[in-house]
Amino acid sequence: MRVRVAVNGYGTIGKRVADAVRKQPDMELVGVTKTRPSFEAEAAIARGYKLYLSGKAERRAFDDAGLTVSGTLSDLIKEVDVVVDAAPDKVGQENAAIYRPAGVKSIFQGGEKANVAEASFNALANYAVGRGKQSLRVVSCNTTGLARAAAVVDRAWGVEAWEATIVRRAADPAESNRGPINGILPTLKLPSHHGPDVQSVLSDLPITTTAVVVPTTLMHVHVNHVRLRHPPADIGEVVRRFRATPRFRVFRAWEGIEGTPQVMEFARDRGLGFNDVMENVLWEQGMSLQGSDLRFFQAIHQESIVVPENIDAIRSMFDLAPNAEASILATDRALGLTAE
Amino acid sequence: MRVRVAVNGYGTIGKRVADAVRKQPDMELVGVTKTRPSFEAEAAIARGYKLYLSGKAERRAFDDAGLTVSGTLSDLIKEVDVVVDAAPDKVGQENAAIYRPAGVKSIFQGGEKANVAEASFNALANYAVGRGKQSLRVVSCNTTGLARAAAVVDRAWGVEAWEATIVRRAADPAESNRGPINGILPTLKLPSHHGPDVQSVLSDLPITTTAVVVPTTLMHVHVNHVRLRHPPADIGEVVRRFRATPRFRVFRAWEGIEGTPQVMEFARDRGLGFNDVMENVLWEQGMSLQGSDLRFFQAIHQESIVVPENIDAIRSMFDLAPNAEASILATDRALGLTAE
Amino acid sequence: MRVRVAVNGYGTIGKRVADAVRKQPDMELVGVTKTRPSFEAEAAIARGYKLYLSGKAERRAFDDAGLTVSGTLSDLIKEVDVVVDAAPDKVGQENAAIYRPAGVKSIFQGGEKANVAEASFNALANYAVGRGKQSLRVVSCNTTGLARAAAVVDRAWGVEAWEATIVRRAADPAESNRGPINGILPTLKLPSHHGPDVQSVLSDLPITTTAVVVPTTLMHVHVNHVRLRHPPADIGEVVRRFRATPRFRVFRAWEGIEGTPQVMEFARDRGLGFNDVMENVLWEQGMSLQGSDLRFFQAIHQESIVVPENIDAIRSMFDLAPNAEASILATDRALGLTAE
Amino acid sequence: MRVRVAVNGYGTIGKRVADAVRKQPDMELVGVTKTRPSFEAEAAIARGYKLYLSGKAERRAFDDAGLTVSGTLSDLIKEVDVVVDAAPDKVGQENAAIYRPAGVKSIFQGGEKANVAEASFNALANYAVGRGKQSLRVVSCNTTGLARAAAVVDRAWGVEAWEATIVRRAADPAESNRGPINGILPTLKLPSHHGPDVQSVLSDLPITTTAVVVPTTLMHVHVNHVRLRHPPADIGEVVRRFRATPRFRVFRAWEGIEGTPQVMEFARDRGLGFNDVMENVLWEQGMSLQGSDLRFFQAIHQESIVVPENIDAIRSMFDLAPNAEASILATDRALGLTAE
Repeated sequence: MRVRVAVNGYGTIGKRVADAVRKQPDMELVGVTKTRPSFEAEAAIARGYKLYLSGKAERRAFDDAGLTVSGTLSDLIKEVDVVVDAAPDKVGQENAAIYRPAGVKSIFQGGEKANVAEASFNALANYAVGRGKQSLRVVSCNTTGLARAAAVVDRAWGVEAWEATIVRRAADPAESNRGPINGILPTLKLPSHHGPDVQSVLSDLPITTTAVVVPTTLMHVHVNHVRLRHPPADIGEVVRRFRATPRFRVFRAWEGIEGTPQVMEFARDRGLGFNDVMENVLWEQGMSLQGSDLRFFQAIHQESIVVPENIDAIRSMFDLAPNAEASILATDRALGLTAE
Repeated sequence: MRVRVAVNGYGTIGKRVADAVRKQPDMELVGVTKTRPSFEAEAAIARGYKLYLSGKAERRAFDDAGLTVSGTLSDLIKEVDVVVDAAPDKVGQENAAIYRPAGVKSIFQGGEKANVAEASFNALANYAVGRGKQSLRVVSCNTTGLARAAAVVDRAWGVEAWEATIVRRAADPAESNRGPINGILPTLKLPSHHGPDVQSVLSDLPITTTAVVVPTTLMHVHVNHVRLRHPPADIGEVVRRFRATPRFRVFRAWEGIEGTPQVMEFARDRGLGFNDVMENVLWEQGMSLQGSDLRFFQAIHQESIVVPENIDAIRSMFDLAPNAEASILATDRALGLTAE
Repeated sequence: MRVRVAVNGYGTIGKRVADAVRKQPDMELVGVTKTRPSFEAEAAIARGYKLYLSGKAERRAFDDAGLTVSGTLSDLIKEVDVVVDAAPDKVGQENAAIYRPAGVKSIFQGGEKANVAEASFNALANYAVGRGKQSLRVVSCNTTGLARAAAVVDRAWGVEAWEATIVRRAADPAESNRGPINGILPTLKLPSHHGPDVQSVLSDLPITTTAVVVPTTLMHVHVNHVRLRHPPADIGEVVRRFRATPRFRVFRAWEGIEGTPQVMEFARDRGLGFNDVMENVLWEQGMSLQGSDLRFFQAIHQESIVVPENIDAIRSMFDLAPNAEASILATDRALGLTAE
Repeated sequence: MRVRVAVNGYGTIGKRVADAVRKQPDMELVGVTKTRPSFEAEAAIARGYKLYLSGKAERRAFDDAGLTVSGTLSDLIKEVDVVVDAAPDKVGQENAAIYRPAGVKSIFQGGEKANVAEASFNALANYAVGRGKQSLRVVSCNTTGLARAAAVVDRAWGVEAWEATIVRRAADPAESNRGPINGILPTLKLPSHHGPDVQSVLSDLPITTTAVVVPTTLMHVHVNHVRLRHPPADIGEVVRRFRATPRFRVFRAWEGIEGTPQVMEFARDRGLGFNDVMENVLWEQGMSLQGSDLRFFQAIHQESIVVPENIDAIRSMFDLAPNAEASILATDRALGLTAE
């Protein structure tokens, strides 16, 4: 049996999840929805996806554009076991009211509030939470990046206190109506909401976060300062631990990755997905251990980092893998994300 | 017989030409060169390319990085029929002194002066010029974009006068040391050098160009104003002509391409090359004909637009195709660039 | 008698007009309005302006902030001879319905449609139009820049055809919610609306315009191509003519003004207004004459270029000066804008 | 007696120090130097400053530009008591070899290494260090911002540990050749050099810093996390303390300062200097106290924050004020920096 999957909302996240679902041997992509015709709807069809009308879509507009539509969201829901909701922020909450009565399982994204689903999810942090659930919420990009790193560090050396400053990209590459063009906007609410959101998947983690928004579209960067309970002998052990964990990439100095522009160029050279980097990106020379104080940078590709997590969330809900490690391995192998 | 090709300089252009050469049935990529180890050198190896040391490279640095080197540029030259020089601007001129005595054919990029080679080249404009030549220069990205469009328009309706304002991207996506961050820099020399450069492949074209540099990394945009000698009945004819010509893509209004950010997203959805757009990009609703005055915008992807031209230049030099149309068709089919 | 002036809307344009009015010996600034308390409202008070509530303002919010309010817009209107409306785009149209019945004269900005007022205005182009009018509209920043240059060129050498490409800044410096951050957005409607808008003050000018939006906040840049009817002997004559005209500044090569970042730095060094450049900015080395083809760049400071025009519009409406030259001279002297 | 001051290097910092010196009643600006003619050199003359040739300047270029030169750096040094060196980074070190044998006192900027002078200086942190010194170094912009804040916090509540993440602007507004245009560059060396640099003026402060570079030109933003030894009762006490200290400005929520773009607009509205903000900028709603953990943002205007410090450094060296408070008060009053 292959789990039949719908993607409701074929945008930045939706298109990547659709692509990832299609690559999984134990899943089947039944169709995707779109609200209006566009180059993205066209691309969905070119990739061989069946296109359905989302709740607010008008069929006529698709007809005028010559795009073949296979039905409505209601039609689509009847044919699947689970809907991955990748609608714009806050719309998922409305959609939940559609999925529930239809008896279909659902997965939401981190732009929704935690109460949109029965539990929040991150594969490295709390994979098992999905078992038996009707709905899950994959935490947002920044939260996913922090949760992954915290899961690794906490298990290895214990986290006494974690402080993260999140330097956020202001818009995605194709969003041309968001600023600022020149300036830094501190997220004045202190601490930021990301800390509690990490705790939705790692409930005991003592984490505090702050954030600033900066005029770039490529990636977020986290500046992490962690006080460890049982620090390792040296930073080399930390480097090795991250290197040995899936969904982390630790660049070496000679590779010449100065910052996020080069990470994105690395992604284009690698050629996975939409030239995505689904791993947490770290720099070997950007890590430091002084006594029990661990500091490290990580870059997070906001468009794609949650994609493998959505896949694992499906596996967790449908009990398709014995544990997190097995699911992550299956997901990453299908996506071409090989360990270093 | 397959033409054996070396790419000297595996950077922005070089990596794309290598990829494109490998996809051609009548060509063979023998190897690429790199000056120092980096994530790009690693990617070349991951793609299965043999890596050679460029003129100034030190083998030790590659050894330290664990990157396998197959020899030096001198070694590589002996094994090939043609070198595509994709070295940084002005270095090609120095390299010419290496290729000539070695008796190997060579192709240079538009960052070099026209006299680096026996002739300048653009497939749509002057394909046949390559026959019998030992060296060619593929004109630069902006010049290629203008030459293509001018070749189409001039043949169809005759160009009385062509004025183009080139709104230039200031840096490539992975160049993090170039500005400006906020501001517009007019290229004060009037007219700009692009006009004469177009005339290096379309000698009789009455073209005048101006340029400004703006803080973006994605694409150039040309604002064209053409006075036609024999104007068509309506703009629809112009649209159809561009649509019927390879290496042009004319977006429709409903596709929702507001500007270069969405063109690049289209490229990621399509998934060719490094998410490249090797065609001139036009907008149907961004074209106007008033009497004999044709105006239209076009966006040019500076990283990739010359890539198919390098392939055609090879075919032209080695007489691998009967004419421009056949070469262009072969190149584009191999690259996945299908007509609309 | 000094003309009593109100400024309705103390934002980017309003604050500058208020400052300029106060400096004129024949005008008196009675007060300015604001919709909500902010650092700008505070600054208005710090500058000694009386603050009034705009139509939609709530007094309570000002009280809570401790900002002294002198009354409402209705109160203010009763005390003045003319209102300069500097409300956000399209709000001016609504405000017109307030000014008219109150019997107060009014001046609108170029963000409003031309029919908001009896005539459109630019000092160099059509100063005399204001006489006897109850309402005027000062044309927008780009239109003002083009109209000034066209008035000079057309009078001196006759304009056969004027083509301008307008490279537009995407947002003002303090607007942090507008994009794009990285990309170029062509204004697909061809020609752009600026040409007809110039004709609202220079009705016979054969001008056609195109526009692109780029990610910068500082200034617009125009690329002008003019076919002259009676061209001068050489470009030097053009340079001298612009230098001899008020509201033009022609930089010399040795001054080292590469682009708009340095123009803004020049403004800070000069220290007028809010570090404004109310003149059209040209570059001597960025001007060219080939036969009858004149080409030149000009940079336009969108925040301030219309400020002296608003002052002249007042003088024109109230017949305070014998002609354009006299009004411009008076305005510029008061503002510290000296000829070169 | 007024201390006679020269400014060697009339650039971003130099022009502001010159302006500030001229405003002090106990100082006299004798002249400024420039390496080549430019709009900035012109502005110096327009402001009434005497212009001298810096070490590498050629008089002929100034003559050609019609700029009056009063002599060379050597001439200038003879007429002054102290030189404020505002040469580009690293050039100050070379200049030190000129000042010393000439017997003139000197003040360097933070772009030089600490050993360029006898001591490093910050008015709030270690004003008295200047007494009897021949040379001082005013610490850099980021270091000045941190040192000021740390001096306040440490004296009031004791600092157990201070962690600062510095989100750095990539270029100054008029530098059009620096990037990145789109991307974030972490300063991979961990911790960054700023911590030790703060300790050059606050030797016992337990501070650790990290930094990232972002594509903006306006201001730096610091994200501070401080563990206090004797925390106050509530955050209100911290707000009041900063408000009561010169060179701090704490914005209120209703003022609507979202980020650095609005801070700069505030500066233009205020109209001091070159529209500068010489104070540390804080947000009342961007401060938080949880137990002994104090967190707050501050924005630092890299162009001007060190300007009053240079003035105080002169006073300290020449014993012109009884203590830090008196010097700061005198400086700020002359500059128009009034307490809130």
